[in-house]
Amino acid sequence: MHVRSAHRSLLVVGSVAFDDIDGPFGLHRDLLGGSASFIARAAAYFTKHVSIVAVVGDDFPKHQLDELTQLGIDISGIERAPGETFHWAGRYAADLATRETVETRLGVFANFQPKLHEAHKDAQLVLLGNIDPVLQLDVLRQVRAPALVALDTMNLWINIKRDDLVKTLAKVGTLMINDEEARQLAEEHNLRRAAGKILKMGPSSLIIKRGDAGALLFHGGGAFAAPAMPLSEVKDPTGAGDSFAGGLLGYLAYAGDLSPSTIRTAMIMGSVMGSFAVEQFSVDGLCGLTTEKIQQRFDALAELAHFERVRL
Amino acid sequence: MHVRSAHRSLLVVGSVAFDDIDGPFGLHRDLLGGSASFIARAAAYFTKHVSIVAVVGDDFPKHQLDELTQLGIDISGIERAPGETFHWAGRYAADLATRETVETRLGVFANFQPKLHEAHKDAQLVLLGNIDPVLQLDVLRQVRAPALVALDTMNLWINIKRDDLVKTLAKVGTLMINDEEARQLAEEHNLRRAAGKILKMGPSSLIIKRGDAGALLFHGGGAFAAPAMPLSEVKDPTGAGDSFAGGLLGYLAYAGDLSPSTIRTAMIMGSVMGSFAVEQFSVDGLCGLTTEKIQQRFDALAELAHFERVRL
Repeated sequence: MHVRSAHRSLLVVGSVAFDDIDGPFGLHRDLLGGSASFIARAAAYFTKHVSIVAVVGDDFPKHQLDELTQLGIDISGIERAPGETFHWAGRYAADLATRETVETRLGVFANFQPKLHEAHKDAQLVLLGNIDPVLQLDVLRQVRAPALVALDTMNLWINIKRDDLVKTLAKVGTLMINDEEARQLAEEHNLRRAAGKILKMGPSSLIIKRGDAGALLFHGGGAFAAPAMPLSEVKDPTGAGDSFAGGLLGYLAYAGDLSPSTIRTAMIMGSVMGSFAVEQFSVDGLCGLTTEKIQQRFDALAELAHFERVRL
Repeated sequence: MHVRSAHRSLLVVGSVAFDDIDGPFGLHRDLLGGSASFIARAAAYFTKHVSIVAVVGDDFPKHQLDELTQLGIDISGIERAPGETFHWAGRYAADLATRETVETRLGVFANFQPKLHEAHKDAQLVLLGNIDPVLQLDVLRQVRAPALVALDTMNLWINIKRDDLVKTLAKVGTLMINDEEARQLAEEHNLRRAAGKILKMGPSSLIIKRGDAGALLFHGGGAFAAPAMPLSEVKDPTGAGDSFAGGLLGYLAYAGDLSPSTIRTAMIMGSVMGSFAVEQFSVDGLCGLTTEKIQQRFDALAELAHFERVRL
């Protein structure tokens, strides 16, 4: 892949975890998961300047960390703490459209206090995965002059830490959440009006992830709808949104600019990486991809969305 | 609007009805409704060769029929029978995303036996709105050599008349249904696989309507995703799918060809007309539009969906 810019570094702050996934394909235990695992893997196809800030327990296998290093990902910000790695158990409905949390064991994540190395403070793109908004704000106080800060969150934080979240949002460039979270945060069902309210909270752009309905971008200049690839094989939606975010930010690092046109293309790259992620369990769908395979799916999405502009 | 072809006639077979719509905006009684009412109005912006085949009761106001005539719609196939016009009452949830049927009074529709005039038998585009599949098949036996037959149906017929529906589908070019109906008809949750199964039942193309998530087209040659316009004002989703179908078939009549490229553009015109329909109650959103307004929304959808094709 031709790297047009080697200057865009991407800092990913998030979780590295183990997941137990139950659903129509049976129970799969101890799968590698966590937002940072998906984000960094997806982004690493586009840029060799991805750094993870996260924490794992002393039970976390060294070979999993070695694998990240082999992918060119900087793991110097992954702290190893005494205790158990964050563990999440979820169960999907037969249609894979809804899921419930069966168990959450925070383990070492309970005391996670992200402390950035000097080198990481100069990151130009910062992606704050879904963690406590207090910690997200704490990271933002440590970075020096990022060109873009993107943030993910979830219903839990909207419910129990709304004030902290709102405070953090005021310092964020791009918020990436799903449609239900957008409705909840804005207290408004209509997505377009919800977007308007959220943009007044601080972010200059809002990306609403809608699963197999694609993703919507709202910003001062308008809106963009990125389609999702209709897939015949979906095994595990876990990490789809994170893979989307990783592809998006990874492409921005690769492209080296943040123009509206580049951001649209980056969302399609996000859709590409999300589509690969859900075809297999854990991060498997993001393993062993090539520039050619990524380009093929990008082209397929371009073909899926193409229509002639006509004049009546 | 420049008419490139005056030869494509569109025959719409469906219902003309009164609706009571309850929901977050209160109860609205005796609104003009029915599939043919929406389809014909949406299509009439694109072609002056729209004919309706339907039945109304002796309670149906003459001025409503006159209005159709003024729009250039041929109403010679609307039969007036003794009895009450078809009446549907529905209630929408606060989010307008789900609805339940409160009451259905078939009235004169119970004995509807569409009998085509000679002129209508030569229609080149035939749109069979959501009625009993036995009646739909009966219409198909009467038309001579249509270039395209499109059909809508609903969960009721999939449930109680599956065999008749399957028999009818074997003679249809394009099936237009929503995502839940597609899953139910194919007995398969995954939409791409459901589409594959449905295309084996006869139709050469399948259009899956997904409300504010847009519409998907599946055919032998691939897939197309038409976006929906994110609207800040949605008052009444009733008739959205019919307006989509009317815009689509109307544009096909206007364009005068059925090439894959024209069909994609036609789906966008469908999305345009569906978006106008939901902004107001009944058919009001389809009234008083101009070529300029339609073009503006088409351009807005083109802008919404636009992204640069890049090579990695």
